Amino acid sequence: MSFNTFGHLFRFTTWGESHGPAIGVVIDGCPPGIALAQDGIQPFLDARRPGQNKFTTQRQEPDQVKILSGVFEGPDGQQRTTGTPISLMIENVDQRSKDYSEVAKAYRPGHADYTYDAKYGFRDYRGGGRSSARETAMRVAAGAVARLVIPDVTITAYTCEIGGDRIDPVNFDAAEIRNNPFWCPDAKAAERWEKLVDDARKSGSSLGAVVECVATGVPAGWGAPIYAKLDAELALAMMGINAVKGVEIGDGFDAARLTGEQNADPMRPGDDGTGPDFTANHAGGVAGGISTGQPVTCKVAFKPTSSILTPVETITRDGTATEIRTKGRHDPCVGIRGVPVVEAMMATVLADQMLLHRAQCG
Amino acid sequence: MSFNTFGHLFRFTTWGESHGPAIGVVIDGCPPGIALAQDGIQPFLDARRPGQNKFTTQRQEPDQVKILSGVFEGPDGQQRTTGTPISLMIENVDQRSKDYSEVAKAYRPGHADYTYDAKYGFRDYRGGGRSSARETAMRVAAGAVARLVIPDVTITAYTCEIGGDRIDPVNFDAAEIRNNPFWCPDAKAAERWEKLVDDARKSGSSLGAVVECVATGVPAGWGAPIYAKLDAELALAMMGINAVKGVEIGDGFDAARLTGEQNADPMRPGDDGTGPDFTANHAGGVAGGISTGQPVTCKVAFKPTSSILTPVETITRDGTATEIRTKGRHDPCVGIRGVPVVEAMMATVLADQMLLHRAQCG
Amino acid sequence: MSFNTFGHLFRFTTWGESHGPAIGVVIDGCPPGIALAQDGIQPFLDARRPGQNKFTTQRQEPDQVKILSGVFEGPDGQQRTTGTPISLMIENVDQRSKDYSEVAKAYRPGHADYTYDAKYGFRDYRGGGRSSARETAMRVAAGAVARLVIPDVTITAYTCEIGGDRIDPVNFDAAEIRNNPFWCPDAKAAERWEKLVDDARKSGSSLGAVVECVATGVPAGWGAPIYAKLDAELALAMMGINAVKGVEIGDGFDAARLTGEQNADPMRPGDDGTGPDFTANHAGGVAGGISTGQPVTCKVAFKPTSSILTPVETITRDGTATEIRTKGRHDPCVGIRGVPVVEAMMATVLADQMLLHRAQCG
Amino acid sequence: MSFNTFGHLFRFTTWGESHGPAIGVVIDGCPPGIALAQDGIQPFLDARRPGQNKFTTQRQEPDQVKILSGVFEGPDGQQRTTGTPISLMIENVDQRSKDYSEVAKAYRPGHADYTYDAKYGFRDYRGGGRSSARETAMRVAAGAVARLVIPDVTITAYTCEIGGDRIDPVNFDAAEIRNNPFWCPDAKAAERWEKLVDDARKSGSSLGAVVECVATGVPAGWGAPIYAKLDAELALAMMGINAVKGVEIGDGFDAARLTGEQNADPMRPGDDGTGPDFTANHAGGVAGGISTGQPVTCKVAFKPTSSILTPVETITRDGTATEIRTKGRHDPCVGIRGVPVVEAMMATVLADQMLLHRAQCG
Repeated sequence: MSFNTFGHLFRFTTWGESHGPAIGVVIDGCPPGIALAQDGIQPFLDARRPGQNKFTTQRQEPDQVKILSGVFEGPDGQQRTTGTPISLMIENVDQRSKDYSEVAKAYRPGHADYTYDAKYGFRDYRGGGRSSARETAMRVAAGAVARLVIPDVTITAYTCEIGGDRIDPVNFDAAEIRNNPFWCPDAKAAERWEKLVDDARKSGSSLGAVVECVATGVPAGWGAPIYAKLDAELALAMMGINAVKGVEIGDGFDAARLTGEQNADPMRPGDDGTGPDFTANHAGGVAGGISTGQPVTCKVAFKPTSSILTPVETITRDGTATEIRTKGRHDPCVGIRGVPVVEAMMATVLADQMLLHRAQCG
Repeated sequence: MSFNTFGHLFRFTTWGESHGPAIGVVIDGCPPGIALAQDGIQPFLDARRPGQNKFTTQRQEPDQVKILSGVFEGPDGQQRTTGTPISLMIENVDQRSKDYSEVAKAYRPGHADYTYDAKYGFRDYRGGGRSSARETAMRVAAGAVARLVIPDVTITAYTCEIGGDRIDPVNFDAAEIRNNPFWCPDAKAAERWEKLVDDARKSGSSLGAVVECVATGVPAGWGAPIYAKLDAELALAMMGINAVKGVEIGDGFDAARLTGEQNADPMRPGDDGTGPDFTANHAGGVAGGISTGQPVTCKVAFKPTSSILTPVETITRDGTATEIRTKGRHDPCVGIRGVPVVEAMMATVLADQMLLHRAQCG
Repeated sequence: MSFNTFGHLFRFTTWGESHGPAIGVVIDGCPPGIALAQDGIQPFLDARRPGQNKFTTQRQEPDQVKILSGVFEGPDGQQRTTGTPISLMIENVDQRSKDYSEVAKAYRPGHADYTYDAKYGFRDYRGGGRSSARETAMRVAAGAVARLVIPDVTITAYTCEIGGDRIDPVNFDAAEIRNNPFWCPDAKAAERWEKLVDDARKSGSSLGAVVECVATGVPAGWGAPIYAKLDAELALAMMGINAVKGVEIGDGFDAARLTGEQNADPMRPGDDGTGPDFTANHAGGVAGGISTGQPVTCKVAFKPTSSILTPVETITRDGTATEIRTKGRHDPCVGIRGVPVVEAMMATVLADQMLLHRAQCG
Repeated sequence: MSFNTFGHLFRFTTWGESHGPAIGVVIDGCPPGIALAQDGIQPFLDARRPGQNKFTTQRQEPDQVKILSGVFEGPDGQQRTTGTPISLMIENVDQRSKDYSEVAKAYRPGHADYTYDAKYGFRDYRGGGRSSARETAMRVAAGAVARLVIPDVTITAYTCEIGGDRIDPVNFDAAEIRNNPFWCPDAKAAERWEKLVDDARKSGSSLGAVVECVATGVPAGWGAPIYAKLDAELALAMMGINAVKGVEIGDGFDAARLTGEQNADPMRPGDDGTGPDFTANHAGGVAGGISTGQPVTCKVAFKPTSSILTPVETITRDGTATEIRTKGRHDPCVGIRGVPVVEAMMATVLADQMLLHRAQCG
């Protein structure tokens, strides 16, 4: 069974293949009356867009989004959501007429080539087809709309580790994130990564990365226990991103190495009457699957892309042994391009949970 | 919005509070004709049951499951599933008439006390109410049925780390898992943990744990991209377990520290024509969200329980500062009791994906 | 695939067979804080309960409902919903040890005997098993809770036709509905039906019925176009009731015989500023799938029960020709007992739509 | 909450407004390997297309469908479904720059103008916006794909009544259906309707219609009790079509006027071993919500369109009394154009139920 829809009430369905005529998303359940224009979505797509520097794949796509439905001139003359489905589309323009005969025949290990064939009997092999990271552009577009549904929430993701080299929390400066091609909040780490990633690129190797995402302004009470808990939905959203192999909420695996005393998030009366003050946030802003009012935090592990210049043993569709290596365009660290996708999925989960909460609790 | 149903086609809904009259689960979508009796479910509940040794909470519950619907005498005289909902119930018998006045008034940090109040306006505070780990008994019951839906799959979970002390892969022996109260496959680690956990118990502290789960016999092709990928569904299932803060598929966060060459899972022609042989399994048996035919593996991080003897700062329902500490029954390492729950959720996700696959791909 | 859950946000799952140990329902998504006790549900079950007069089957069931979860003492000391799943159960007490050997072997035409076997391979044949109208008791229980979610809506169903004999609108008196065993608002028709139904009962025949349901107090704006329209959801709900073969909204099939002029529902400015006044309601309170603020009306056709004394040709499980006729307890007009079920499903659909509306439109 | 997705496993999501740039549908869950090209969909759209004769609205749209994703060259060189979402789009070309100032200001009674405003706060008023029957083009496109999923099923719908004038079963000739602009299987009735509908058209009035749909080749066993019964899903599908006010399965409301003896569908051993022979089909091919193997039949009542030349009392957005009458393009009997939509929804429900059945019962 194919499942191309994400979300319960704020819900989007993506479609399209890497080398088909277009890719798109239909967003359903968006509240009416929200000001929405193409230029509110485009900047997020531009942030994800490849080919902007030497650290990401050189595929050149303008990724120009079109709004095909779901907005109309509101009483104030502004384009506003009408409560009907919002259809967004990006035409694929850089489908270069490459020779796909090798990838049509042999499976690239670590990619979805073999598994799509095993599942469906055959596959669109051009550029990864449906399993291409290109599909995540539409998640970013949906996330841009989701943000407008929860305007009081601020979402920021950044890379905190590349190739095993971590940022130093002492150097954390949110203002740095957009100053380097890595979404890195530590200027010194960003400097080191220049060389690290460039070396990987030049040698045709690849590196993994860890991305952290923080959402502030989330009120206490969002999350739908037992089986649509806020943290579990985030895990679903993040693990579903291409190349992701691990998800942590708050301290994650580190929490498993703490004692109960060390891991406690004590509460004090809040200064301003809007809720308690917590003196720590090991939990990452979620308890019992429901937001606590603290920042919601998660960490996401991206594997190194499997597209490398070194030949890897594999088999052909008919079961013969062969070797394959990546040619052409190449992302030395796909995690970098995952940053806007992680933000988008955080936005989507939170918008969805806000609507769920409003439905049940008024 | 409350979501108490898990799964798409093999789907279960749990109900019940820790100290209500009973807890239960309704399983919908189970294929007909499967032999099912109470003694096929009870052993899994017995494995999860607390109070069996000093390393788990001393709550004494027989956890005797009753099948209330969905099975009937098949043509062969055996009780078999009929394809209608399977209702399972456990009566709560050890609801000791404890004094709940303190927990009714003050929030236990790290528990769901504050968040349930923030969401719903009030809560059943007796023993954690709905957010109690007692609810996971019904996941174990559902998982016991799920296993019968995928009889060729073998699922084994075990503890691979407690309080930061890891097992040594060299000592791994699956036969050891049931020989100690920790589900530990490394006899030497189990010995060390005896003291570690007992010390935590005596001092009223608590420890975290990491549980690993391996499913063998999963054919290539299960998993529903893009938004119900096998790995993403596992992340949803595992992160939704009480006290879980992190989930990894295959190498997880470690993969983010490897190069593309190190992380490759090369393929060779299979000996027996049933599929390729992989020479590594960094991916944990999933590529592009679809099973590869290799063992499906995941790791799950449990935080130390927040119920500790050391007083923690907190507030009362009316916002006054106070302190709270756990009295009475206490689990020094909740991760231990999570092992059967992790297995059950793996079984449920796989059974669901098998049905999804069969629906779309015949 | 088995689907035993109804509703999107106010959602219930039923379980149980006619002659199993019990039947039950789990209601999920109910808002918290609603006063709910067993005596708020029991009267609705009593209204549906068989064996209360000679016009319904003589099965004697106290149908005593138990609340097993989802309510707790609220701040005011009253039992209130907590926002967690509400589990309701009725134990089956009148499972008389009848001889089922005939029905186990041969298919009763018009019942689900053959189709359950065709679908599932075998069936629980005792009293219709899962397909028994007994299951509708749990819809009535869920409907009783649904009414509490929309306290400003009043729902009334009544029989408007039995065996082709219609009520006269001139005689309509809502106060009469509970004065006769037929839920008939026309005292004169009720008199005629006494003889009509009694004759059918004595001769072992059966009669069909048409039930109308009216909901007042529904504000304009409920309904989720395009595929969860209020009228379409009502059609789903009503057609799913045992023995129902037709559903109409407003004028229904009669509207197909009117001209556009005759079928118009003109609007005038409302007296009280709460919305327009409509001068007709051919539409049954729904336009474009969304409530107009007028009464929501539907009509539901119940076939005559297939359980009759006259032998009917049929086949056995192994394909041999035979005849079957109903013995023992018998409902001469099942439509009568459908009245409380129709009300319950109207309540459920409206509660669900209210939550859906609140989610999207605040 | 907006719901623009229909179906459980074969599932489609439509988007688009009457006068936006385009309308579209995304079909998810379609099995892989099915030969699908644009010319397999276009004929169904052509059948629904308006402006083909004087009996339907004169809007001129080529309704040229484009396949944007989900198909790829199969191993045999044919375009085949890949198991990924199938995105179909039709560009709107006849959005004539009409003056919408009247309809922007005043509500057309019987249309969704008032209710969309009541629900969403404002609306796209151009040509009915999202509530326009234009959206049903995409249901027809989805239905064309659904038919390919169940190739052994034959679906035929036809008009059996217009303006209260019924066909005579004696004259029924399936070959006639495509010989007249009304989809009428009775040549004599078609002759009468010429005048009937033309008179309505000339006078600016409108007529209702009843459409019947028959599916043959449906095996016994499709249908998902209790809450996704085949008949209930058909009711949902049909009642959701624009202008529909009633749905009947088999004899429908007539069954409520029969006795149990008259309504019986006796069974005899089948000649060919493929199942029983039924000697009647009052039930319309469904018992207990599951197909019996007989033809699945339903009847659907379409109201006369509310767009008429006679002025009707109404109010403006600001609550002032006014009158409105339809200008320009006009459908004297919308039921006629509903025929291909009814067929499409029957196909969709059956394809969905086939997948559901395959999932649970193998």
